[in-house]
Amino acid sequence: MSSFSPPERLLLGPGPSNVSPRVLASLARPTIGHLDPRFVGMMDELKALLQRAFRTTHRLTLPISAPGSAGMEACFVNLVEPGDTVIVCRNGVFGGRMRENVLRIGARCVLVEDAFGQPVDPAKVEAALKANPGAKALAFVHAETSTGARSDAALLCRLAREHGALSIVDSVTGLGGIPVEVDAWGADAIYSGSQKCLSAPPGLSPLSFSDRAVEALKARKTAVQSWFFDLGLVTAYWSGEGARTYHHTAPINMLYALHEALLILHEEGLEAAWARHHANHLRLRDGLAAIGLDLLVPEAARLPQLNTVRIPEGADDAGPRRRLLDEFGIEVGAGLGELAGKVWRIGLMGHGSRPENVDRVLGALRTVLGR
Amino acid sequence: MSSFSPPERLLLGPGPSNVSPRVLASLARPTIGHLDPRFVGMMDELKALLQRAFRTTHRLTLPISAPGSAGMEACFVNLVEPGDTVIVCRNGVFGGRMRENVLRIGARCVLVEDAFGQPVDPAKVEAALKANPGAKALAFVHAETSTGARSDAALLCRLAREHGALSIVDSVTGLGGIPVEVDAWGADAIYSGSQKCLSAPPGLSPLSFSDRAVEALKARKTAVQSWFFDLGLVTAYWSGEGARTYHHTAPINMLYALHEALLILHEEGLEAAWARHHANHLRLRDGLAAIGLDLLVPEAARLPQLNTVRIPEGADDAGPRRRLLDEFGIEVGAGLGELAGKVWRIGLMGHGSRPENVDRVLGALRTVLGR
Repeated sequence: MSSFSPPERLLLGPGPSNVSPRVLASLARPTIGHLDPRFVGMMDELKALLQRAFRTTHRLTLPISAPGSAGMEACFVNLVEPGDTVIVCRNGVFGGRMRENVLRIGARCVLVEDAFGQPVDPAKVEAALKANPGAKALAFVHAETSTGARSDAALLCRLAREHGALSIVDSVTGLGGIPVEVDAWGADAIYSGSQKCLSAPPGLSPLSFSDRAVEALKARKTAVQSWFFDLGLVTAYWSGEGARTYHHTAPINMLYALHEALLILHEEGLEAAWARHHANHLRLRDGLAAIGLDLLVPEAARLPQLNTVRIPEGADDAGPRRRLLDEFGIEVGAGLGELAGKVWRIGLMGHGSRPENVDRVLGALRTVLGR
Repeated sequence: MSSFSPPERLLLGPGPSNVSPRVLASLARPTIGHLDPRFVGMMDELKALLQRAFRTTHRLTLPISAPGSAGMEACFVNLVEPGDTVIVCRNGVFGGRMRENVLRIGARCVLVEDAFGQPVDPAKVEAALKANPGAKALAFVHAETSTGARSDAALLCRLAREHGALSIVDSVTGLGGIPVEVDAWGADAIYSGSQKCLSAPPGLSPLSFSDRAVEALKARKTAVQSWFFDLGLVTAYWSGEGARTYHHTAPINMLYALHEALLILHEEGLEAAWARHHANHLRLRDGLAAIGLDLLVPEAARLPQLNTVRIPEGADDAGPRRRLLDEFGIEVGAGLGELAGKVWRIGLMGHGSRPENVDRVLGALRTVLGR
C-alpha cells in the first residue's frame, strides 16, 4: 500500500462538488487545539459567516461535526420527543429519511406525499396540519438532492407557524446555491451540508435553530436521546464568553475549510452566487434540450444546482456514467430510490457551477450518447 | 474577516496531537466522489490498515464519520436496547459519558466505580457481573484520557465473555500508543479517535465489532435509535463487492488523512511506535521528578502517551498553562471533571512523542514554575 493519489475528477454529481485550491490549502494548515483561544476566535467568525449565509440572526447557528445526515438527526432528536406527532413531506429520498428519524425517536409520523420530482404541495400540507392539531413539527426538504425539486420554503414555514408547529427544513443542497432566507421564512430548524454549494469537503452540517426551537429544546420532558447531538451540550462549547466547555473534540481542519469556503461565498456575495448558479443552469438546460435530453422536474420547481435528466430511451444507466468517468473524468450522479435507473443527476454546485464545466459535460454527453 | 492562519503550536495536551506534514498534505488532495471506484479502493485499504492497527480480523472494522464521542455512541446504540442492563466502569470522565449513553437508550446502568487516576478494579467488575446475570454488556475505558490511567483490557474482556456479556472498550487514546490487541483480548466492540496517537486531525472514530457483536446487532428486537450511527446501514456502504450502497456522504478528505496516518504507523511498525511512546514517557517522568513534579497515576497503570501531573502547591492551574501557550507555544491540557484545578495533562502522542518535545516542555515548565 502507498499514499493515496486521487484521480483528477470534474465532480458534477449530487455532491461532493469540486473544492477550490484555496479551501484545500486551508484544510492543510497545522492542526491546533479545540480550546486554543485563537481557535475559539475562528469559531466565532465561522458562526458569524454561517449566520450571513443562512440570512439569520439566530444565535444557535453552528456546524454539526458530521455530514448532512447528522444535521438532520440533530434537528429531530433535539426537537421531537417520544409520542409527538410530526408531519413529514416526502417527495424524494430525503423526506423518507426524515420519516426514519421520526420513527426511531418513537414519535408518530404523518406523511404528506408527492411524486418524486414534484415540489411539496402546500394544500396537502395545510390539510395535514388541520387534521393533526398539536403536531410538534412540520418537516420538509427545501432542495431535494434525490430529485432536483425545490419546494416553497417560505410558504411551508408560514403554514407550520400558523398551526403552532415548528418547521424543520432540509437545505443540504440549497445553501449557497439558491436563496435561503431563514429569518424571512421564520424557519425554526434548518440544516445543510458543507460539500454541496459551499464547496468545502464533506463532513460538516451547518445548522440553525430559532429562539422558538431553542425554547422547545429547553422545555423537553425527556433527555435528548443522543449525547453526541445534544445541542444543549454542543452549544456550551460553541458559545459563551471566554473559556468554552469541552463537549467533543471539534474537527479542527474541517472547520478551517468551512471558514474559508464561507469567506469565498461572502466575497462573491450571496446574490451573485445565486445568479451564477441560475445562469449556468440555463446554459445546461439549453444544451441538454439541443441534444434531446429532458429534465424531470417541472420548470418552476427546478433547482439550478441539481439537474435531473431523464435517461433517454435506448440508453442504459450505468454504461454512459462509467464512460463519462473513465474517458472524460466527469462524475455525474445516478438516480436514487425509485428514480434509480431512470435519471442521471448533474450537479452544478458552488465552485463547480461554471460555464466551462457545463460545456465539458455537454460535450462528453454528446460523445457518449452519440448525439 | 480574512483567511484563518493558525499559530504555531506544540500540541502536548490530551489531543489533538500535532499532525505530520505528510498527513496534512494528504488532507489537501482533491476531493473526489464517495462512490468513485478509486475512492472505494482507498476505503478497502483503509479498512485493512485499521484491522492491522487494532490487531484484528473483524470484518466490521471502519471509521465512524465523526469524532471519538460518536464512536462511543455508535457502540452503545447498536448493541444496547431499552431495558438491557449494562455494567459501566467509571474511573474518569469518559466512564461517566458511557453511563450517559446507556441511560439515554433507556437501559439500566450498573456503575463500578474507582477513583479518578486508578485503573478499573477487576475484582469489583467480577462481583458486578455475578450480581447482574444476563447483563448485556460490560463497558470500560482502556486508556482514560481524563486521568492517564490504563486498565487491563485483556482481563476485563475475558471476564465479560465468561459471564456472557459483550465487552465495549474505549481506546480513544490507546490506539497506536500502547498495545491494543482486539483479537487476543476477545474485545467485542472497540472505538478510538483519529487525533490522539494516530496523529490525524480530529473528526473520525475508528471502530471494530466482533462477530459476536454483529450477531447481537442482527438479533435486536428494536431498531437502532440512531439512523446516522446504524451500523447495519453504514456497513452496506463500507463493504461488499463492487458498488456500495450510499448511506451518508463520507468525509472524503479526512479519510485520505486517516489512510496516510495509518500508513505512517505501519511503516514504523506497531511495536516500534509503542516502544517510542514508552521511552519518551520515561524521559518525561524523570524530567518531571527532577523538578519535583508528581504524576497522579500509580506507576503500573500509567499511560505513556498521557501524563497527568499534580499541580504543585502554590501554583495555580490556568496561569502556567497560559504562559506555556503564550510564551512557548506549547499546549498542555487542564484537568477534567473532578480533576479540574488539580492536574495538568501532558500528552506525548503519535507524531508528538519525541525526545525534543519532552525537553521543550520540561524547559518551559522549569521557567514558568521557577524551578
